[in-house]
Amino acid sequence: MPTVLEDCGKAGVKYAIVHTAGFKEVGEEGLKLEKQIVEIAHKYGMRIYGPNSQGIQNSDPEVSVYANFTFVPMKPGNISIVAQSGGVGETLKLHLHRIGMGMRMYASFGNEADVSMNEIIDYYGQDDETKVIMVHIETIKDPAGFLEVANRVTRKKPILVVKTGRTKEGVTAVASHTGSLMEQDTLADAIFEKSGVLRFDSQQEMIDAAIALSTQPVPKSENIVIVTNTGGPGIIAVDECISAGLKLAKLSPETGKALGELLFSEAIVSNPVDVIATAGAKEYGGTVEALLKDPNIDSLILNFVTPPFVDCEAVAQKLGEIGAAAEKPIICIILTIEERWGEVIRVIRKSGIPVFDFAESASKALAAMIKYGKIQRREAPDYPKYDCDKKKADEIIGRYRGQERFLPQADVFDLLHTYGIPAVKTVRVEDKSQLKKAAGALTYPLVLKVDAEEVVHKSDAGGVCLNLKDEKALLAEFDRMASEFKKYKPGFVVQEQQTEGKEVILGAKDSPGVGPMLMFGLGGVFVETLKDVQFRLAPLSKQDAAGMIESIKGYPILKGTRGEKPADVECLVEMLGRLAQLTVDFPEIDEMDLNPVFVFETKKGARVVDARLKVKKPE
Amino acid sequence: MPTVLEDCGKAGVKYAIVHTAGFKEVGEEGLKLEKQIVEIAHKYGMRIYGPNSQGIQNSDPEVSVYANFTFVPMKPGNISIVAQSGGVGETLKLHLHRIGMGMRMYASFGNEADVSMNEIIDYYGQDDETKVIMVHIETIKDPAGFLEVANRVTRKKPILVVKTGRTKEGVTAVASHTGSLMEQDTLADAIFEKSGVLRFDSQQEMIDAAIALSTQPVPKSENIVIVTNTGGPGIIAVDECISAGLKLAKLSPETGKALGELLFSEAIVSNPVDVIATAGAKEYGGTVEALLKDPNIDSLILNFVTPPFVDCEAVAQKLGEIGAAAEKPIICIILTIEERWGEVIRVIRKSGIPVFDFAESASKALAAMIKYGKIQRREAPDYPKYDCDKKKADEIIGRYRGQERFLPQADVFDLLHTYGIPAVKTVRVEDKSQLKKAAGALTYPLVLKVDAEEVVHKSDAGGVCLNLKDEKALLAEFDRMASEFKKYKPGFVVQEQQTEGKEVILGAKDSPGVGPMLMFGLGGVFVETLKDVQFRLAPLSKQDAAGMIESIKGYPILKGTRGEKPADVECLVEMLGRLAQLTVDFPEIDEMDLNPVFVFETKKGARVVDARLKVKKPE
Repeated sequence: MPTVLEDCGKAGVKYAIVHTAGFKEVGEEGLKLEKQIVEIAHKYGMRIYGPNSQGIQNSDPEVSVYANFTFVPMKPGNISIVAQSGGVGETLKLHLHRIGMGMRMYASFGNEADVSMNEIIDYYGQDDETKVIMVHIETIKDPAGFLEVANRVTRKKPILVVKTGRTKEGVTAVASHTGSLMEQDTLADAIFEKSGVLRFDSQQEMIDAAIALSTQPVPKSENIVIVTNTGGPGIIAVDECISAGLKLAKLSPETGKALGELLFSEAIVSNPVDVIATAGAKEYGGTVEALLKDPNIDSLILNFVTPPFVDCEAVAQKLGEIGAAAEKPIICIILTIEERWGEVIRVIRKSGIPVFDFAESASKALAAMIKYGKIQRREAPDYPKYDCDKKKADEIIGRYRGQERFLPQADVFDLLHTYGIPAVKTVRVEDKSQLKKAAGALTYPLVLKVDAEEVVHKSDAGGVCLNLKDEKALLAEFDRMASEFKKYKPGFVVQEQQTEGKEVILGAKDSPGVGPMLMFGLGGVFVETLKDVQFRLAPLSKQDAAGMIESIKGYPILKGTRGEKPADVECLVEMLGRLAQLTVDFPEIDEMDLNPVFVFETKKGARVVDARLKVKKPE
Repeated sequence: MPTVLEDCGKAGVKYAIVHTAGFKEVGEEGLKLEKQIVEIAHKYGMRIYGPNSQGIQNSDPEVSVYANFTFVPMKPGNISIVAQSGGVGETLKLHLHRIGMGMRMYASFGNEADVSMNEIIDYYGQDDETKVIMVHIETIKDPAGFLEVANRVTRKKPILVVKTGRTKEGVTAVASHTGSLMEQDTLADAIFEKSGVLRFDSQQEMIDAAIALSTQPVPKSENIVIVTNTGGPGIIAVDECISAGLKLAKLSPETGKALGELLFSEAIVSNPVDVIATAGAKEYGGTVEALLKDPNIDSLILNFVTPPFVDCEAVAQKLGEIGAAAEKPIICIILTIEERWGEVIRVIRKSGIPVFDFAESASKALAAMIKYGKIQRREAPDYPKYDCDKKKADEIIGRYRGQERFLPQADVFDLLHTYGIPAVKTVRVEDKSQLKKAAGALTYPLVLKVDAEEVVHKSDAGGVCLNLKDEKALLAEFDRMASEFKKYKPGFVVQEQQTEGKEVILGAKDSPGVGPMLMFGLGGVFVETLKDVQFRLAPLSKQDAAGMIESIKGYPILKGTRGEKPADVECLVEMLGRLAQLTVDFPEIDEMDLNPVFVFETKKGARVVDARLKVKKPE
């Protein structure tokens, strides 16, 4: 390889696609060789694609590149595909090919020694002929780059992703490393959410959505109508659409009247509209025309079973004509045998209306389109800039800069204060006389906590005492802890005890390159047992923070059940925003947990009761 | 219709298939006509199939009945289909037809005026040539009959069901009635669980599973192996299989050795086994042969992408030979284009190995097979018969027999006592002097509750007072309640207050014809907000009851988090069993709620704190 690349460089080659394996994936030796070939290439201003890659395709007739080993014939289309696995890439192309669709460009990038997945996605994003991008990912090598590129591209066109390695075993199969396995997938989800990427659990669902998005306009709302000429599949479509959060539009009175006049008396004029099996081109076509005009409706699912006693080709012809001119998306389910009514499918597909075999697939594809519509319409995020004493915060964090350690409690509480994050009154004391003085300015019952770097899980270690009702109890407890933790030469913090409010947890964890990932959940068993938590990447808009809070399953608990007053969610939104701002401002913060935080009823705020903060060494 | 049926009857016709609509589904008049035609038929000993039905098919060459309007050509096979919707029935047949499979029998039964869905399933169950039954259901007309038939049939062969109307809107589309909509679906799930029916949310997943079950033996365990000649799809299969609860078997040392010798050095001998793309018939076939012999493995997923540089037909030939003789199930995923390697698919399918397009579909089909294996292996349930004082219970319930009402608290607690369901000490009192006397024998703090049929939601009405620390507080509260609820002429109950334990809820609700459906959940927000509850039909085996408890998401809370002691689950199992026995013994119990129940740590039992019981009039 080095020799060949030297020759290429000398000959003025600008790009080399390296198919062959035997590099990073085989170990230390291979990695060395991989670095070497990239060095050679860069010496000549050449870029390396691969190695260990299946290659690329470009179906543009002007270009027609087939630098790839594959078996699916190439044909122009408007879907471009990036696949980490060549086998998965092949699967994606295969299913477009089977229904007569082509693709625009294809890349299976292998080891990403030089040209990266993000560069390819960026390039496809800029390509006017690419309408939809399908991506298969096993690991995101450069999450920050992906975030930046995807954020830009999804404003123009949808990026659809299947990311494998969802399970621990799947990740192990991707690469035999261990570590924070599930966290990677959580991070991927947070990146996809932030950048508006649509994630799918199944290749088929991604392909179906890609077909629909590449052929039809983006729906303007979740208001849909279902038309069917047979009951059962219509009901399945209803179940699927409703489960996916879509809404069955109410037909306007005009539409109702028009359909009433047009259709047979046995037809059902509601939503779903059942035109019944005897409906021909006039009835089925007229129905679709009327529904397209209805302002309550933004997309249509048509279910058509081919009845032997109807001129099905005429129906298809009519639907095709309507579909070619329609400005609202139409998705079709055709139940038929191709030997007899293949023409029906071909005519409808030719008009640009996608045709599916199952009500479930069509409904899921439409749901994905509607989700993309919402992403496209979402406003550019407005990241609030909260007032805070950054200088003071810098002074506190500065004391520990360059170290890898937990901060003393009192400093963490001081830091929260500089960023306007409300916490219970907390005073650091070193000895009994300081404790007495501090307690005098606080209201009993009090809480006493040991404060030493070595004692991370204070409660478990017996370093937290709640419910100290008077000075006597406080001092007794101080004596016990002072003796018990003597070897750490600890300090102590004394706090007012929080006796009401609902328990929540806020947190932040730095993801190298991507920045802090914020966490929100209800406290106690909700986090530990039910894993009912939400993650978002910083910075957070108010919508982001509110979205995190509203997305936990236990949200009704914050809203108040059984006549309880709602919790001060607005305050939590601001706290999350301030926490995001703090962790963005100080990248040396590795992780931060505000746990527990007690939130009170609306307008009454919330208070951090315990907090941990770990700084890390610069990378 | 009546005239035609009279003629049929006179001519000695035994069965009439009525396709035509215009009966029950159009309203009162139609219902009358429907009853009339059934009467006419029965007068002549004739059975009616339908009306408003698509009809039947029987592909047995000896019979070859096509009494049906449909377009999918009929061909013999071993899957029989029962579909409430003809459109869905057509979809199911269509996808068997597309891959060259036939079906055994088909029935779309319409209004079920006489011949019922249950009779058809029963008949298919007895038919030796039917290996798998696929069912599409919108509403279960006779749940008790279904339960009985399905219970019998699933011991011999799998019943696969798609039940539509999962969402409120879906149910509304099925029929425009309202009422306890979601409950119907919960009941359906409980019936499927009890009778071992496999439920699917998607038609395609059901069809895939039917194909696999109809062609392959039932897996003996969840230990699987994945073989692939390309990495990506193998990882997808891992993700899907693990998500579905399957286990990647550890290859035996013998298998490892055999594969190590057989395969190319780049191959990965673990699970998944990656034979790499260059593997030919010898390597791929030899691998499968070795794996089939491995006692750690009970089923195989083979992923085969057709590499242009390999003799793919030879691989297919070899896999086909192996598959035809194999005693363990094999499922194949083939990634190819049919124009070039259609023969590969045909050869493998011919051997009986099912071929899927996607790793996801193959994995889900195998997961369904493994689930059926577990159902088939489950032991005949052993319903415990707990000692109880049925005579005394009958005496208590007898006082309210024939009425529709809630029972007084004290009677409910007495009833619990007769069936050995532990409850807190509860005494009914009518006046102050009785209260004083009762309180004297109890330990403070006490709870006072109003006990009047009219006050159903006692807490909300101010009819419950907790934490009464002494006689003075108790009597003061008594005075308040006595005055407040004067108009109901109430009684009262006084109880010892429960100050520890974890809150759970047990319940039972009668489902007409099917008997009591038991409910279990954690108390408070877990039930109200998170809907974390489980339902099972009575009677309950110990396994059933334990299964209910272990299946709630919050189960770790009962097992004990953070070093807490586990709760007495054994006691809860027995309480559920006793509650099931009570509600089975007394069908006049319409609903019963034990809420809250406090459960203590292992061996320390549990106690009902509050209970409601409603009896109903006989049907």
